[in-house]
Amino acid sequence: MLKIAVLGVGRIGRMHAENIAAHPRAALAGVFDVHGPSAQEVSQKLGVKQFESAEAVFASGEVDAVLIATSTPTHADLLEKAIAAGKPVLCEKPIDLSLERVNACAAKIAGTSIPIMLGFVRRFDTGHRAVRQAIESGAIGDLHQVIITSRDPGMAPASYIEVSGGIFRDMTIHDFDMARFILGEDVTEVSATGSRLVDPALMQKCGDYDTVTVVLKTASGKQCIINNSRRAIYGYDQRVEALGSGGMAISENRPLNTMRLYSESFTDQAAPLMNFFIERYADAFAAEISSFVDAVEKGTPTEVGFEDGRQALILAEAAMLSIAEGRSVNTNEIG
Amino acid sequence: MLKIAVLGVGRIGRMHAENIAAHPRAALAGVFDVHGPSAQEVSQKLGVKQFESAEAVFASGEVDAVLIATSTPTHADLLEKAIAAGKPVLCEKPIDLSLERVNACAAKIAGTSIPIMLGFVRRFDTGHRAVRQAIESGAIGDLHQVIITSRDPGMAPASYIEVSGGIFRDMTIHDFDMARFILGEDVTEVSATGSRLVDPALMQKCGDYDTVTVVLKTASGKQCIINNSRRAIYGYDQRVEALGSGGMAISENRPLNTMRLYSESFTDQAAPLMNFFIERYADAFAAEISSFVDAVEKGTPTEVGFEDGRQALILAEAAMLSIAEGRSVNTNEIG
Amino acid sequence: MLKIAVLGVGRIGRMHAENIAAHPRAALAGVFDVHGPSAQEVSQKLGVKQFESAEAVFASGEVDAVLIATSTPTHADLLEKAIAAGKPVLCEKPIDLSLERVNACAAKIAGTSIPIMLGFVRRFDTGHRAVRQAIESGAIGDLHQVIITSRDPGMAPASYIEVSGGIFRDMTIHDFDMARFILGEDVTEVSATGSRLVDPALMQKCGDYDTVTVVLKTASGKQCIINNSRRAIYGYDQRVEALGSGGMAISENRPLNTMRLYSESFTDQAAPLMNFFIERYADAFAAEISSFVDAVEKGTPTEVGFEDGRQALILAEAAMLSIAEGRSVNTNEIG
Amino acid sequence: MLKIAVLGVGRIGRMHAENIAAHPRAALAGVFDVHGPSAQEVSQKLGVKQFESAEAVFASGEVDAVLIATSTPTHADLLEKAIAAGKPVLCEKPIDLSLERVNACAAKIAGTSIPIMLGFVRRFDTGHRAVRQAIESGAIGDLHQVIITSRDPGMAPASYIEVSGGIFRDMTIHDFDMARFILGEDVTEVSATGSRLVDPALMQKCGDYDTVTVVLKTASGKQCIINNSRRAIYGYDQRVEALGSGGMAISENRPLNTMRLYSESFTDQAAPLMNFFIERYADAFAAEISSFVDAVEKGTPTEVGFEDGRQALILAEAAMLSIAEGRSVNTNEIG
Repeated sequence: MLKIAVLGVGRIGRMHAENIAAHPRAALAGVFDVHGPSAQEVSQKLGVKQFESAEAVFASGEVDAVLIATSTPTHADLLEKAIAAGKPVLCEKPIDLSLERVNACAAKIAGTSIPIMLGFVRRFDTGHRAVRQAIESGAIGDLHQVIITSRDPGMAPASYIEVSGGIFRDMTIHDFDMARFILGEDVTEVSATGSRLVDPALMQKCGDYDTVTVVLKTASGKQCIINNSRRAIYGYDQRVEALGSGGMAISENRPLNTMRLYSESFTDQAAPLMNFFIERYADAFAAEISSFVDAVEKGTPTEVGFEDGRQALILAEAAMLSIAEGRSVNTNEIG
Repeated sequence: MLKIAVLGVGRIGRMHAENIAAHPRAALAGVFDVHGPSAQEVSQKLGVKQFESAEAVFASGEVDAVLIATSTPTHADLLEKAIAAGKPVLCEKPIDLSLERVNACAAKIAGTSIPIMLGFVRRFDTGHRAVRQAIESGAIGDLHQVIITSRDPGMAPASYIEVSGGIFRDMTIHDFDMARFILGEDVTEVSATGSRLVDPALMQKCGDYDTVTVVLKTASGKQCIINNSRRAIYGYDQRVEALGSGGMAISENRPLNTMRLYSESFTDQAAPLMNFFIERYADAFAAEISSFVDAVEKGTPTEVGFEDGRQALILAEAAMLSIAEGRSVNTNEIG
Repeated sequence: MLKIAVLGVGRIGRMHAENIAAHPRAALAGVFDVHGPSAQEVSQKLGVKQFESAEAVFASGEVDAVLIATSTPTHADLLEKAIAAGKPVLCEKPIDLSLERVNACAAKIAGTSIPIMLGFVRRFDTGHRAVRQAIESGAIGDLHQVIITSRDPGMAPASYIEVSGGIFRDMTIHDFDMARFILGEDVTEVSATGSRLVDPALMQKCGDYDTVTVVLKTASGKQCIINNSRRAIYGYDQRVEALGSGGMAISENRPLNTMRLYSESFTDQAAPLMNFFIERYADAFAAEISSFVDAVEKGTPTEVGFEDGRQALILAEAAMLSIAEGRSVNTNEIG
Repeated sequence: MLKIAVLGVGRIGRMHAENIAAHPRAALAGVFDVHGPSAQEVSQKLGVKQFESAEAVFASGEVDAVLIATSTPTHADLLEKAIAAGKPVLCEKPIDLSLERVNACAAKIAGTSIPIMLGFVRRFDTGHRAVRQAIESGAIGDLHQVIITSRDPGMAPASYIEVSGGIFRDMTIHDFDMARFILGEDVTEVSATGSRLVDPALMQKCGDYDTVTVVLKTASGKQCIINNSRRAIYGYDQRVEALGSGGMAISENRPLNTMRLYSESFTDQAAPLMNFFIERYADAFAAEISSFVDAVEKGTPTEVGFEDGRQALILAEAAMLSIAEGRSVNTNEIG
C-alpha cells in the first residue's frame, strides 16, 4: 500500500483523496489545505490525519508520496520541496503559468530519480488511450492528421478566467498534452486563431479568447488541429480523431446514459453529454492514481513526466505568439 | 431492352412504370388501368401507349413481359392469363388473400417455364440483403435467432383496413417472406399474439389486430420474432436482426438525412425515419426491376417465386389460427 | 451510516461487500461465508469482522441490516431468519427455485414491516431506468410493445447449468422482472418457445433450452417480447426497447470504450460489449445499495420487493408450462 | 420542360446528361464533346441529338439552356459564349484555375440577367443543407465554429494531379464554397498548413500538398476549420460540423448500406463509406438540376452564382499565399 498525502482539498483535491482512499493498492496518509476547515472536513469524512502544514507532510515518515492539488501558483514550490524531501509527487497541471518559473524548477530538480508525474488525466481515458493504441499497434497505419475537439460545457466565473493565465495555459494545455500523446512526435510549428464569441466583453477585458483553433505540425508533417470553446451548451465535448494511412480512430463522447429516444419529430436522440470533467474522466482519474502507484512501486518512469508539463506550456506560449503576430511560430522560438 | 407493360397504375403501379421507364435495360411498353383517366395520365406523362384492356396487353407483340399492380382480387386471374399468353410476370404481393385461390392458381400454372416473380421488394434492400449475405458467407456463424421489427408510420384508412384481409395477410406478409429469406429454412411452428391498441374500435369491428407479435420456429430450432405495429409515430420502422453462433448482423433504419443535432437537453438527435415504403424502399424497387429483367433475359430462376408467395400466406393463416386457439400451430396443419 | 453485513462472499457477495465499504452512507459490518477462507480473505482485505455463523450476524448489535448473497437454496431460510431477527434484508435473486417454497416463505413473513429488497439489479441501470422514466413522464405516450434482448456472453459451466433450475428461473428471471418494471402492469398471458442451439447435448441432458423467446401480454393488451441466448459472442447484450403511441425509447448496449475504428473494409466499428454483469451493471449494483439504504433509513418501501421476486418466478413457471404444452398460459393457472 | 444541352460528356457530363433526361421538368436537348465517339455513345444511349460543335449548341433554337462539363480550361470561354447567346448556364466548377481569367470573365458578363449557376453540388446534399437550415432557423443559436472534414478515398492519377492546379484549387475549392455556404458571412482571414504524407514524391514534384488544414475567420470572429486528405482509406469522408451558442449540428457520413456487424472482436461495425462523389452526391446532383430549372423557369436567382465561384478561388489563392509565407492572409490581399 502506497501511503499518499494530498495537498489541497478543493474540488479536485478532494476527489483525488477519495480515489486514493478507495484504491486497492494505495492508502490516504492524510490531507492538508491552507483553508483549515476544508482539510478538517475531508479528514473527518475519510477518517485520516489532517496535517498542519505542507512541511509537516514532507517531514512525515507516514507519507510515502504526495499529490499536489493546491492553487496553481504554489505548484512549483511544493514540487521542489517534495523532491527535496525525497517524496514522489503527482502534481496537478499546470506546473506554473510562467515558462520561466517552470524552467527554473526544471533546473532545480534536474537529475533527480524521485518519480514525478503530471496530472494530465485525459491520457488515462480508455477511449483516448484506445486511439493511441490503434496508432501504436499499426491498426491505422502511419499517422497523418489528428483532430482534438475539446469544449467546456460553460464559461467559468469571471473571477476564475481573470487569473487563469488565458485559455491556452488554462484549457488548451490539456489538448496540447493530448496532441503530444497522440502525435508521438515533437511539434515544430504552431499556428493559432482566437475569437471572442461566448463572452466578448470579458474576453476583451482579459485580453483572452473563448473560441480558439490551433494547428500543430511535426517535423515529419503530421498535423494536429485543436478546437476549443469555453461553452458547448450540449455538455463537455471531448473527442479525439486520428487519421492514418491505413484507417481512422475516433474517441467519441459519452452521454449521461445509454437511452435513445424516438418521436414524431426526431429519432435516435441521446441524453446530454456528461458534464463536467469530474464525471467524464472519473475512470481516468482513478486510473491515473493506479499509474502513479505503479511507477513508484515498480520504479518505472511515470507515464506523464515533468517535461511533458513543460512542453505543453511551450505550445501554449507559441500559440499566444502566433495570434499576436498573425503567423506560424516555430517551437524553437520559445523556451 | 425488355419491354414491360404495367397493369394497374395506382400509387405503386405508377412508381413501377416510372422505374421501368428509367431502367437502362428495360422499356415501358405501355400501361393499362380499369380507371381510364389514371392510365391516360401516366401514359401521357411517360410518353407510352395506353392499352384498352388487360387482354390487349397480353395479346400485344410489343409486350415482352407484364407487371401486375392492380387490386389484390385480380392478381391471380391476371397472373394466370399472363402465363397463358406466355408473358413473364412480376406480380405485386399478395397473390390472393385466399390460400384456396392461391392453391388453385398454383395448380393451373404448374409446370410452366415462364418466369414468375413475386413483388416482395424488401428482399432487394441493400441492408437486409447484407444481413442475409452475412449469414451465407458464414460471417455470423450458424443462425440462431432473428428479430424482424416492422412498423408502419400510421394506420391506413378504415376503408382500406376493412378489405385488407387482416394484418397478417396485408402487413405481416412482408415479414413472413423476410423471415423465410433470412432463415433460409422452412418454418414449422407459428405462435402469434395480437392486441388492439392503436385503434381498438376499428380493430374490434374488423376482428383484426393493430399490434402483433409472431414467433416462428424451424425444424432445426432457429427462431424468428416478428413484431408489428400499425403506427410508429417516428416513421417507418424497418429493422432486421440476426444472431448467430459467430456474431450478429442488424439492418438498421434510415432517417431522412444524415444530420445530427445537439442541444442543451439532448445530443446526437437524428431526423425522423423515411416515411413510407415508396421512399424507404426506392432503391429496392429499382433493384427488383433489375432482378426481374435479369431472370427473364438470362433464363435464371426469379429471386422470389410463386411458391414464396404461397408460403408467406400459409404463415399468415397459421398465425391467425394460433391466435384463435391460443396455441402454437404447426405449418403442416395449413394448406 | 447503515451497518450492513454480507452473507456469502463468492463473486457477487464480494462485490457487494466492496460496494458497501465504499458507499458514503453505508458501512460494512462484517462478512460470513460457509467457506471460512473466503470470508477470511474478504474480511482482511476490507478490514472488517469475519462472523462465525449466520446466526452470529443476526444476533449482532453491530449489524443494522444484511445482504444475502449465499447459494440459492439457502436464500429463503436466511431471509426468514433475518426478518425474525428484525434485520432489513437485501436478498440476491431468486428467493428460491421452487414457487412452493417461495409461497411458504411469503406466508411466514406476511405482515412484516421490516424492509425486504430483492436484488433485481437491472432496475437500477441508468439506461433502463431512463426508458421507464420516458414511459412515466408520458414522453412516449401509451405503452404498446416492449422488446427485451438479454443474451449472456457465454454458456456457464455444465456444473452450473445442471443445478440452475433451467434458463427461465436462472436467466430469464431478470428479464421477467424487467418486463414487469417496464410494463407497469400485471402480465396475464405467457407464451414461450425454446431451442437447443448453443450446446444441444447439454440442453438435452438437462431438459433445458439455451435460446428462448417469451411473449408476455397484459390485461390491457400491452406486449413484451423477451429474447434470450446463453451465448452472444460479441459480449453481454442487454437492451430494452419500448414502443408507445407517442414514440419509442431504447436502452442501448455499452461497449468497452468509446473508440470507433475505420478501415478499408469497414467504418464506425466499436469495441466488444462489456462482459459480464459485474462490469456492465457496476453502477447499477452501487445504486442498488443506495436504494436499499434509502428505504431502510427513510422507511419508504423498497424499490423491488419480495412480491416482485415471487411474480417473476410465476412468469418463469408459466413459460415452462407454455413450452411443455405448446400453448399460451394464463398466469392465473400458476401459483 | 426546360431543354438543356450538355457540353462535355466525360464521367461527370454523362451523369448530368442522364439526370437531365430522367428529370420530370427538364429534357436533354442534346450533347456535344470534342471527342466525337463519346458524344455519339451518349446520344445513342439516351436517344438525343449529337451536336457537331459548341457553336451549334449555342445557335440552336431547340436548346433553352446549357450545362458545361468540359475540361476546366474551356469553362470560361464557353460560359462567355453561352451568355452571349442568351442561354442560361450551369457550369461545373472551377470557372478557371486563374483568378485573373475569372476576373476577366466576370467583367465580360457583368450586368447580364441570364441565369448563371456554378456546380458546387455539395450545397444540395440533404445533410449539409440541414446543417445550414439548423443555423438559419436559429436551432443552434449564433454560429461560432465550423469543421469541414473532406477527404478523398484515394489519390487521383499523377497525370491528373499535375494539371489540377493544386489541392486548394482542385479539391479544397469545394470546401471553401461549403464554408461560405455554412458561415453565411464573408471570410476575412485565411491560414493554411500543408503536408506531403500520402505521396511525398509526387507532391514534391508538383509543389503541391496532399494533406492540408485551412483555418478561415470572418469579420465577426466565426471560425471554420477545413481538413483535407487526398486519401482516406475507409472511403469518401464528407462531414460538416457547426457549433453555435445554442447547440451543434453535424452532417455525418454515409456508409454503403445500413447493416451493422457484431463479432467476438468488435461491435456495431458499419460498411465502408460511399465511394466516390458520383455515388455520395447522387441525390445532390439531381437536386442541383432541379434548382437550376427552378431558377431559369421562375426567374429567381441561382442558388450558387458566378461570384460564389470567384470567392472560392480567392480563398484558394489566400491559402496558397498563407503557406508560402507562413502567415495569416487577409482576403483583401487577393483579387
